[in-house]
Parts: sequence; structure tokens; C-alpha cells
Amino acid sequence: MTPSATPLPPGSTIGILGGGQLGRMLALAAARLGLKTHIYSDQSGPAFDVAAKAVVGAYDDLAHLAEFAATVDVITYEFENVPVIAARHIEVLKPVRPGPLALEVAQDRVTEKAFIRKLGLPVADFFPVGDRDALQAAMQQMAASAILKTRRLGYDGKGQVSIKPGDNAEAAFDAIGRNPAVLERRLAFTAEISALIVRASNGQTAIYDLPVNTHRDGILRVSVVPSSIPDALIDAARSAAKRIADALGYVGVLAVEMFVMPEGSRDRIVINEIAPRVHNSGHWTMDACAVGQFENHVRAIAGWPLGSTERHSDARMENLIGHDADGWGKLAATPGVCLHLYGKREARDGRKMGHVNRLSPRT
Amino acid sequence: MTPSATPLPPGSTIGILGGGQLGRMLALAAARLGLKTHIYSDQSGPAFDVAAKAVVGAYDDLAHLAEFAATVDVITYEFENVPVIAARHIEVLKPVRPGPLALEVAQDRVTEKAFIRKLGLPVADFFPVGDRDALQAAMQQMAASAILKTRRLGYDGKGQVSIKPGDNAEAAFDAIGRNPAVLERRLAFTAEISALIVRASNGQTAIYDLPVNTHRDGILRVSVVPSSIPDALIDAARSAAKRIADALGYVGVLAVEMFVMPEGSRDRIVINEIAPRVHNSGHWTMDACAVGQFENHVRAIAGWPLGSTERHSDARMENLIGHDADGWGKLAATPGVCLHLYGKREARDGRKMGHVNRLSPRT
Repeated sequence: MTPSATPLPPGSTIGILGGGQLGRMLALAAARLGLKTHIYSDQSGPAFDVAAKAVVGAYDDLAHLAEFAATVDVITYEFENVPVIAARHIEVLKPVRPGPLALEVAQDRVTEKAFIRKLGLPVADFFPVGDRDALQAAMQQMAASAILKTRRLGYDGKGQVSIKPGDNAEAAFDAIGRNPAVLERRLAFTAEISALIVRASNGQTAIYDLPVNTHRDGILRVSVVPSSIPDALIDAARSAAKRIADALGYVGVLAVEMFVMPEGSRDRIVINEIAPRVHNSGHWTMDACAVGQFENHVRAIAGWPLGSTERHSDARMENLIGHDADGWGKLAATPGVCLHLYGKREARDGRKMGHVNRLSPRT
Repeated sequence: MTPSATPLPPGSTIGILGGGQLGRMLALAAARLGLKTHIYSDQSGPAFDVAAKAVVGAYDDLAHLAEFAATVDVITYEFENVPVIAARHIEVLKPVRPGPLALEVAQDRVTEKAFIRKLGLPVADFFPVGDRDALQAAMQQMAASAILKTRRLGYDGKGQVSIKPGDNAEAAFDAIGRNPAVLERRLAFTAEISALIVRASNGQTAIYDLPVNTHRDGILRVSVVPSSIPDALIDAARSAAKRIADALGYVGVLAVEMFVMPEGSRDRIVINEIAPRVHNSGHWTMDACAVGQFENHVRAIAGWPLGSTERHSDARMENLIGHDADGWGKLAATPGVCLHLYGKREARDGRKMGHVNRLSPRT
């Protein structure tokens, strides 16, 4: 369905597939604009408490999804593993933004890398591997440290294993569950950055300042703006993000994760992966910008004008993982700290329970 | 019930009496902190769409209120006309914050003025008037332009009429429905300001920068920070607000509206009225401070540490009244404008449909 030219008026209803913290923060942003939210998720979650309606249903239950679609004016999603077939099914009923193409590309690491490379943008060397023998062959050709990742359904470092020349291919393939995979060259990057770009249905784009991100155990811990990455690299990163968003005919917020690679006197960027949704590395925008990523995603999918992505403060976003969130009392008492908790009952290891944005005057 | 010393942990539930836009914005702020919200209101309203649970009930239905109280951990209200008897009834079951005393004082203009005067703080001359003859006598004694206001249930300029020496007392008394009233001297003020003070259950207070407010037809239109009011006056205003909050044993956000009166070379402030709740003139705090008034109210009533009331940006808040809100598309497209719409279906004259906060770098 072609995005309509008419914006959804206040009082319209946004349907969100997925009931996690991203859905919750999208719902809160929609509420600010006078828009309602209905949630569809395979289990009850943090978004359920802040939505006008919430239903539990399987993501491949097409009849149930169609029923849900009938109650909303536009549909979006908070995670990239919504089945493409489901998105295509409901797209006939109501606009799905971002479109199914973005899902299709983002769901498969091989499709994703091929798509990005086809746009003339740099990605790490990679080999699709369907079985142990293919992996063995790929390792020989790579002849360098690498990461073996499942093609599908990996997140927060899950479904990944490090591998280096001489390692046992069979063990590595076992470790990721013998699923179709991709062998990626491990890059000796100097920094990880991300572009949060929002694209409107009329093709207009806006992009937030690019944060530098720090991961631990495969999970994002900290995002900081401003970064000290040179302007030329930032420009390259911004233009890469725009090229990807345009090529996907994207509507909404798209996250593009990138590595900064040292190359003698001239560094360069390499695209790591994309996420067709609001993104953890953009959580600082909630408090450091007049219009944050969640509101801009809602604006884009509702056909509204984009909000300015300008930043009024410097910010350091820190995730509260697992029992980090037990320290909420102390964090709440710290000046300049904006505390966000997701309302999850149980603080399991590795579970994202909330985040804080530490603001300071813009430098 | 004495405020408990233990803060309510994330996951607790805030009960809100009233389902309007203030309840809605309180619910959104609570959600940010991982707290749930249940709404009790005499009619469905904007807050219903963002709460975990919402019930329609009469404010004097004590059994229904008790049932509601059983589902929450603390109770607050978004408007000052909750019957005191209802607040006292449920207070036995769950903490009610701010306490019923604040309601009692704020609900009756005579009690309110007497309370403030007893604290040694200046209010306009006033006379309680119970009938036409009393009004006649009061007018003679006042011998100046005045405003006749109902003692109870007035808001946004409703239940008020201007009156000057020689006017017909009977007609004026008719105009406000022959209700118990107060005759207040009309003050030739040079500015209206308001103090938004938040007081924690341990007595700690924090106060936002005082906005200058502009009303039209009795309805707030614009609030601006910073103001050009001299420091000495601001200090007096802050200390008056603190004295009132302390005297009420207040917990939560309290708004104190004041007039700046020219007095030769030294201006002074006169207290106009108080509102025992978050307040329209504090809406700019949502976007210009790390922690806004709604979050600070939630923090206070939940026994959490207060958030800093520091301002990172200058701000101009403009209410969207009635059909003002039809301009949402243009407002959404204006850089630096934070748009808030309340999700009200019908734009009636004088109805608060939303507001915008125009941010600019802090001067």
C-alpha cells in the first residue's frame, strides 16, 4: 500500500506489533501527540500498561492479525522479527510502516549485507554458510579472525560465536545450533557509532547526532553524544544512513550501526547492521532533544511533519541491565539524571530493565 | 495516614482521581518510572487511554472508591474538587497525597484566603458574602472595584463576575447563581506569576523557576520562563510557596498563583490562589527540565527522592484552546516546538485541547 499523503489526525490509532519496552515508549510518545495505541504481542509485556488496548496473539496468526488491523489506522512494529508474511498480509488492510521490505532485509544477515553492499556501501567480508563443510571452506578463504552468526533471529549477542583460523568448524557450527549462518570478518574497529535516521512518507529525512556506543557481552551499555569522531566520517555515516533509508523506501526511524575503522591517516566507516525500528542507542534523544526518536517514529508513520532532531543538551545514556535497576533509588536522587524504567517485574541477567540519560549543558 | 518512609518500588500502582489531561500526563510520567496507573473518574476522559486500568464512578460513591483504593498503593488527584469526605474515607485504606487538608483549604476561597493570611502572607482584601444584603454591605466597605466569586467550584474564570461601587448587588449575586461567595478587591497588578513547588514526604522541597502567566477570558494562555521579575520578589514568592506547602504538610506538586503589585519603588507579591495539584502554568517543565512537574509529583507521592527542578532551556508554553488545536499540523512542523495534544475528541470553545512548549537555548 502506498503511504497516504494525508496525515492521520489526532485521535487516530497506531497499532504496534510487539509489547516490549520499545513498544511502551512508542505508545507514550504517541499519547503525547493525542494518538491512541493498540498493542499486539505474543505475550503480555511492558507496553500493555500504557495502551488503550492490548491483545495477545501469535505473530503468524493471520486471522487474529487481520482482526487487530481492523481496529487501527496504521501499523508499526518494535522488533525486526515480525514474520514478513504477516506484514504482507496485513499491509493489504492497513499501511504497515516501515514497509515489509525493511523487515525482509533486516531479518537475514546475508540479505542485509548483500543489500548494503549493492548500494556501494562498505560491509565486513562475509560468507554465507549452510553447513559445516561450507563453514570450513569459508574459514580457509577468510584466513582471519571472524564471527559466526546465525542468519536469523540473533540479537544482543545471541546466536554468535567467535572463531579463528584453525578452530574446529564443527564445534562452532554446533554452538550456534547448526542454523544457516554467516561468517563475518572480525574488524579491529576503534569505535562503534550509530545513525538514527527518520524518514517521512514524502521522503524527507532528519538525523540525530551520532552517538558512540559501548557494548559489553554483546549488549549495548552506553551511548554518548557528542562524539569526537571527525566530521568527515560523520558525514559519510549520515549519507550512508540516508542512502539505505531511501533504498528501502523507509518510513519511520531506522538505526544503522557502524564501525569506525582505522586506515592509516584516513579512518573510514563500515556498516555493521541495520535495525528497522527505534533503537536503544537513540534513547538519549528522549531527554536531550525537543523531539525524540519515539515521537519522530510516530510522526513519520502517521504521515506528520518530522520533528527537529536538534539536541539541546549533551547526553550519556546508560542501560540498566538486570540488577543494575535495583539502584533506581540512588539514580532517582542524582541531579541531571533522567530515569526510565520499563515496568518489567523480574530483573533477570542480561535483561534490559531501564536506562538513564545523564544530561549536561551542550558543549 | 502518616506518609510511609519506604518508597513505593517500581511496579507499584498509583491511583488517580480524575481522568482529564492532568491525569493523563501524570500517568505518562508514572509510566516513565516503571509505575502503573489506575484512573477513577466520573466520566471517561483523556487519561483512560494511557492507564493500566480505568473505572467510571461517582466521587461520592464511597463503596466504589474503597474498591478502587484496594487496587492501588497510593492515591492522588488531578483536580481540587474531589469531595473531602471521599478523600478522608479512602485515606484510611491507602495514603492520599496531597492529604485531604490541602483539598479542604483549596476548595473554599474563604478558607483558602484565611489560611494564607494566617501564615502572615498577603492576600487581597476579601469579604465572605452569604446573601445579597451581605454583598451590599461588603461592597460599601470595600468601596473599590472588586470581583465576586463563588466560594466553591470555580475554575478557568467560571463563577466570577466583576463588580464596582454603585453596581447592582442583586444582579451580581444572581450572576453567580446566588451561591455562597467571596467579594475580593480587584488588584491592579503588573504581572501574574506562579510558583510550582514540590514537597516530598520527608519535608524536602524543590521549586521550579517561576513563570510569568498571561490569562485571557479567565483562562491561562501563556507561561514564560525566565521572567524579568526582580530577584527579591522571586525570593519572596518562593518562600511564600514553601511556607504554604509546609503548613499544609503537603506531599506532591503545589501551585501558588501570585500577583506582582506595584508599590512605588518596591514591588510586592500578593497570593491569589493555590491549586493542590500539578498546574497548567507548569506544563513547560515537561520539556525544559530533566524532571518535569508531572514526574516530580509522582516521585513525591510515591515517596521517591525529588528530581532536580533545574531548567536546561528557556521556554514559552502556549495553551491550545478550542480550535487553536486545529493548527497542530503547522505546529508539529515548527522547529523547537514540543507539541502536546490531550486526545480530546471535540474542540469546544474554551476547552483545553493541548499545549505547545517553545524551547530556546537557556539565556
